[in-house]
Amino acid sequence: MTNFDIEISEVGPRDGLQSISPIMPTEAKKAWISALAAAGVPEIEVGSFVPPRVLPQLADTAELVTHAKAIEGVAVAVLVPNLRGAENALKVGPDKVTIPLSVSETHSLKNLKRTHEQVLDEVRGIRAAIDALPAAKRPKLEGGLSTAFGCTLEGVVPEDKVMEMAVKLAEAGCDEVGLSDTTGFANPKQVTTYTKRIHELLGPQMLTGVHLHNTRGQGFANVMAALEAGLTTIDASMGGIGGCPFAPGASGNIVTEDLVFLLESMGLRTGINFDKLFAARQVLAQALPEVELYGFTPEAGLPKGFSPATPQ
Amino acid sequence: MTNFDIEISEVGPRDGLQSISPIMPTEAKKAWISALAAAGVPEIEVGSFVPPRVLPQLADTAELVTHAKAIEGVAVAVLVPNLRGAENALKVGPDKVTIPLSVSETHSLKNLKRTHEQVLDEVRGIRAAIDALPAAKRPKLEGGLSTAFGCTLEGVVPEDKVMEMAVKLAEAGCDEVGLSDTTGFANPKQVTTYTKRIHELLGPQMLTGVHLHNTRGQGFANVMAALEAGLTTIDASMGGIGGCPFAPGASGNIVTEDLVFLLESMGLRTGINFDKLFAARQVLAQALPEVELYGFTPEAGLPKGFSPATPQ
Repeated sequence: MTNFDIEISEVGPRDGLQSISPIMPTEAKKAWISALAAAGVPEIEVGSFVPPRVLPQLADTAELVTHAKAIEGVAVAVLVPNLRGAENALKVGPDKVTIPLSVSETHSLKNLKRTHEQVLDEVRGIRAAIDALPAAKRPKLEGGLSTAFGCTLEGVVPEDKVMEMAVKLAEAGCDEVGLSDTTGFANPKQVTTYTKRIHELLGPQMLTGVHLHNTRGQGFANVMAALEAGLTTIDASMGGIGGCPFAPGASGNIVTEDLVFLLESMGLRTGINFDKLFAARQVLAQALPEVELYGFTPEAGLPKGFSPATPQ
Repeated sequence: MTNFDIEISEVGPRDGLQSISPIMPTEAKKAWISALAAAGVPEIEVGSFVPPRVLPQLADTAELVTHAKAIEGVAVAVLVPNLRGAENALKVGPDKVTIPLSVSETHSLKNLKRTHEQVLDEVRGIRAAIDALPAAKRPKLEGGLSTAFGCTLEGVVPEDKVMEMAVKLAEAGCDEVGLSDTTGFANPKQVTTYTKRIHELLGPQMLTGVHLHNTRGQGFANVMAALEAGLTTIDASMGGIGGCPFAPGASGNIVTEDLVFLLESMGLRTGINFDKLFAARQVLAQALPEVELYGFTPEAGLPKGFSPATPQ
């Protein structure tokens, strides 16, 4: 029995920190992750198992998984670019492992240096590595459909290509696929249509989450479409930090603080305490004073007479 | 036959300019209004007939109505606080006259210095003044339900009070009522429920528009709810300037530029040309260099391969 209706997956420690040049000290990251968990954030993507020379900002991911796993009640997610990254991840036991596959093959070659078939080979390898673990130790394997709604390099990404890749990720052994608006191109009609088609192709349990950006201000319109289509996990980033560093022009994850307000205002429980969430924002702000934090709700405060759905 | 599916009503010249202290020169306002009309914006609220000592920023409203009326294809809207303001408005012939009624009576007393009954008396007087005109010269009379979704002074505003005031505005002679999130408290469930109830009470033709703020980032989530509920006119402000100067803590109209992108991305025609819209933003930026303009789309640009619904 969960204490939330919609699961917010905080991706700031991964998607946020990989997009900025300052390197947040490991102890500060731990304090931030602890503060997020204390606020009730149900899932945190703590980092990515990429080589430190590619993303030195995330070099301490293994240590952060160990730290977060010791906190009760929070699911620990990580990104992996390939089998090698996954093998390193499995050593420290995250709850969820996500491997992105860029539906735009141009972006895939640039971001992951792999063709679709090469990425699917990695997925099959990761599936085997997970299945070699005792059942109780197996993380969930998610295939992330990056650039699903359009690509800064290719432009329009055909809808049928998204469907093809969703099916291939499932066949390669993913427990779930996720829709990702890597580039901030998504519109609500796409979110509705793509979700519906994937649910028909693979079953609703195979797609529960979405990763949205606010590049053109459309983030929460897409959240509404996602909720309407029955998705229940939404990625967001505290202070809206982050985006994709390999997609020029893209910026701005949707803001966790405003998303919590939106959902709670609609009577949807997030399991999150506002005061503690704003306290976690302070931890982030103090650790990265040079980084601009977005979000309206922390500044405006909660409306007079506001009753959140989650008991505070 | 209109060339738009959703009508964007640009309220920047009224709601935006009344909220900032610099006074935009009349010639600059005219240039901005002309640029907005040239971009295809179908309705512009050019000002408010309030005494110049209250809002000196809007003292030239009559001149702006005359200017805008001379432009083909744009509907000219104005705000009036009372019968006296309406009488001044009717002399210059706007297409639409909106009188706000704050559902929160505390806010009504503070903002308009009138009780509900006193405001309804003004509405009846305005109805009579309009009906005294030849039929072809009668503007549409809208009653704006301010603070419909909550009030910074009273907090929660009872839903039944909103319904009661909607009915009373209709009975007092309004051609239409409008829902207004003066304070940035609205959530999508409210937008859906209130619209549905007013449509049931008064008929769908009596409520077609909504005025939304982005105070806590929820503006476009509420737009989605409004579209879903069948509303077809949405207020927005270029650069997101404005809010309500008598509602402490409230800020931020939704941004016209991002709203046009959102609607066009969903295949809904706004009748607006992006290049000319961004040019109108430049006119505003140059006239008010000290005012910060919001909006993501002008900076991010349109996505690669983007096809607007409106022929460009």
